[in-house]
Amino acid sequence: MAAWLGEQGSVTAAALAIDLGGTQLRAAMVSSAGSILSFAVEPTRALDGPEAIIAQIFSLLEEIVRQNPGQVPVGIGIAAPGPLDPKAGMVIAPPTLRGWHNVPLAKIIGQRFSAPVWLENDANAAALGEWRFGAGRGVDSMVFVTVSTGIGGGVIADGRILHGRRGLAAEIGHMTITHEGERCFCGAIGCFEAVASGTALGRRASARTKPFDGSAMRALSANADVSGRNVVDAARQGDALAKQLLDDEARWLGIGFTNLLHLYSPDMIVMGGGISHGFDLLQAGIASAMRERAMPAYRDVPVVTAQLGHHAGLVGAASLVFQNHIHSEEASHG
Amino acid sequence: MAAWLGEQGSVTAAALAIDLGGTQLRAAMVSSAGSILSFAVEPTRALDGPEAIIAQIFSLLEEIVRQNPGQVPVGIGIAAPGPLDPKAGMVIAPPTLRGWHNVPLAKIIGQRFSAPVWLENDANAAALGEWRFGAGRGVDSMVFVTVSTGIGGGVIADGRILHGRRGLAAEIGHMTITHEGERCFCGAIGCFEAVASGTALGRRASARTKPFDGSAMRALSANADVSGRNVVDAARQGDALAKQLLDDEARWLGIGFTNLLHLYSPDMIVMGGGISHGFDLLQAGIASAMRERAMPAYRDVPVVTAQLGHHAGLVGAASLVFQNHIHSEEASHG
Repeated sequence: MAAWLGEQGSVTAAALAIDLGGTQLRAAMVSSAGSILSFAVEPTRALDGPEAIIAQIFSLLEEIVRQNPGQVPVGIGIAAPGPLDPKAGMVIAPPTLRGWHNVPLAKIIGQRFSAPVWLENDANAAALGEWRFGAGRGVDSMVFVTVSTGIGGGVIADGRILHGRRGLAAEIGHMTITHEGERCFCGAIGCFEAVASGTALGRRASARTKPFDGSAMRALSANADVSGRNVVDAARQGDALAKQLLDDEARWLGIGFTNLLHLYSPDMIVMGGGISHGFDLLQAGIASAMRERAMPAYRDVPVVTAQLGHHAGLVGAASLVFQNHIHSEEASHG
Repeated sequence: MAAWLGEQGSVTAAALAIDLGGTQLRAAMVSSAGSILSFAVEPTRALDGPEAIIAQIFSLLEEIVRQNPGQVPVGIGIAAPGPLDPKAGMVIAPPTLRGWHNVPLAKIIGQRFSAPVWLENDANAAALGEWRFGAGRGVDSMVFVTVSTGIGGGVIADGRILHGRRGLAAEIGHMTITHEGERCFCGAIGCFEAVASGTALGRRASARTKPFDGSAMRALSANADVSGRNVVDAARQGDALAKQLLDDEARWLGIGFTNLLHLYSPDMIVMGGGISHGFDLLQAGIASAMRERAMPAYRDVPVVTAQLGHHAGLVGAASLVFQNHIHSEEASHG
C-alpha cells in the first residue's frame, strides 16, 4: 500500500466501498477526498442467503475495478446492517438479510481481493461519512440521526466511532422518551422511534384523515395510508393539518435530540433520512423543544441536515479505509 | 518522574488525589494499586470563594505529603464538580461552589507543587475509579450511575472516559424517560432524576404517609419528610408500603438503565450512591424492567453495585494520574 502510494503519488488515493442494504447493494470507488469516482447498484438478493449476496459483492467490486483501470484502491470498506462485530469483521444476524449468521464477511472479501477490509454497521458508517466529508467536518463529537421508516444513528465521540459492547452503541431509536404512543415493534412503549419516526408521523396522519376525504395528505397518498413524506409534502403546500402534525413531530424530535445532547454532548447533531427533507418545516419546532428542555450549557449546539444523502454509507465505508490506512501508515513509520 | 521510578523501583508509585465536593474536601495519597495510603477530609468552605478553597487544598495536600515522607507522587489528580473543562484544567461554574468562574485549578495546583495535574468532573472520576480499581475492572465499556439526591454518571466507552463537547457527556439524570412525574429542577418534565432519584423516592413515600401516622417510614424519619434511605430501611424491616415503593423505584431505574444499554452499549452498569445500599431489594425489579424493555442483544449485560463507596472520586482522581503518566512514559520511550 505504502509502496503504491509512493510509486504513483500523482494518482489520487482511493478505496473500494460497499453499502450492503436489505433492498439495495451499492458499490463505489471513492477518492480520499470523499468523491465518488464510480458507482454501481443492484437489488440485494436478500432472500437468497449469504453465498448469493457475496457473489453479488464480488461481481460489483470487479465491475468497479474494471471501470477504474489506473486506480489501485488502498483497501475495501463495507457498511452492512447490524448487529455486526466490527473488530472481527463479522456480520452477526441482520434482520433484513435472510440466513446470515456470523458470516466473516471482511475475511471472505479480503481473501478474494487480497486487500485489507474494514466492516462497520451502516448507521455508524453513515455517521463517519458525514463526519469526514459531510455536515460534520471538523468537529470532535457528532451524533448522526436518521429519521425515516425507523430511527437509527451513529455517534462520533471525541474523534472516533462510539462502539461499545459488540458495536451496539447508539441504538438511538430505542431509547424510551415517553409513556405515550403505540407499542414499538421492539415490544417496549415510548421508544423514540415509535413516536418520532416517519412511520409514526404517517400513522398519526392516517388516523386524522380518511381515504377519499379530499384532504391534501390523502390526495398525495393516492388515498392509501399516509406516509411521513406525504405529510411533509402537504405541509409544504400549506395544508393546516399537515403543519400541525409536523409541529407534533418536531416536538418529539426535539425531546429525543435533547436526550442526545445530555448523553453524548456532541458539537453538532446531524439529521438525515427521508423526514430530513422537511427539515426547513421542522427546524423551528425542534429548536423550540430543545430550548425548553436542554440544560443551558447544551443549548447552543446546532442541529443541521446531512449532506451526503444516500451516499453517506458508501463514503463512510471508504472513510474506514482511509482512517485505518493512515493509522497503519503512521504505525509502520512511527 | 521516570527517573524517580527507575531510582526507587522498590517503592510503590503513588499519586496525590483531591475530591473537591460542595460539602467535603477530601485528599489522599493513593498507590498505583488503588489503595488509599493516607487520607484527610474537611468541610469545604463552599461559600468563601475559590481563594479560600484553594488554600484548603494546598494545606490538605501538604499534610498528606508530610504523612508520607518516603513517597514522591508522580502527579496530582483532582475530581471537582462540573461543568469543567478537563483539557484546559479549568473549573467553569459549579453550582455548588460560590464564586467559581473559569478557575484554572490544574495550573494553580501544578505551579504550587511543581507536579503534573489532571482535572476531571467528579462523576467521570468516580466512573474511572470504579473501572480501574472497583466493580468495572477488566471491561472495555462501563456506565457508572450514582443514585442519591440526584442521578449522575460517567461513561467509560471503548477504554476511555467519554467526554464530548466541553466534557459534558453522560448527563444521565437529565435524559427524558417519561411524561409523568413532577417537574425536574432543570425545568423539564420526565427527567430520569426527577422520577428515579432518592429524592423522588422519598417524595413518593412522603406523599403516601403522614407525620405521626405510625408507619415504619415515618418512624425512621422521626416524622419528618421521608428520605429514600428511610424507604430502603423500612423495606428491609418488611414494611409492605416501602416494598411497593421500591418496586416502583426499581421499575424507573430499569427503564433508565435500559436506555443506557441502548445508547452506550456498556459491558456492565455499575450503580452507586445512597440508594444502591438497597440494591439487594431493587435488583429483581430492575432486572425485570430491563428484560421487558431491552432489545435481546443487550439483555445479558449485568447491573452491579459500586465497590469503592465514597472513595471512588479520590481513587478515580489518582487513576487520571496513573493513566496519563503511563501514556507519557510510553510516549517518551516509544
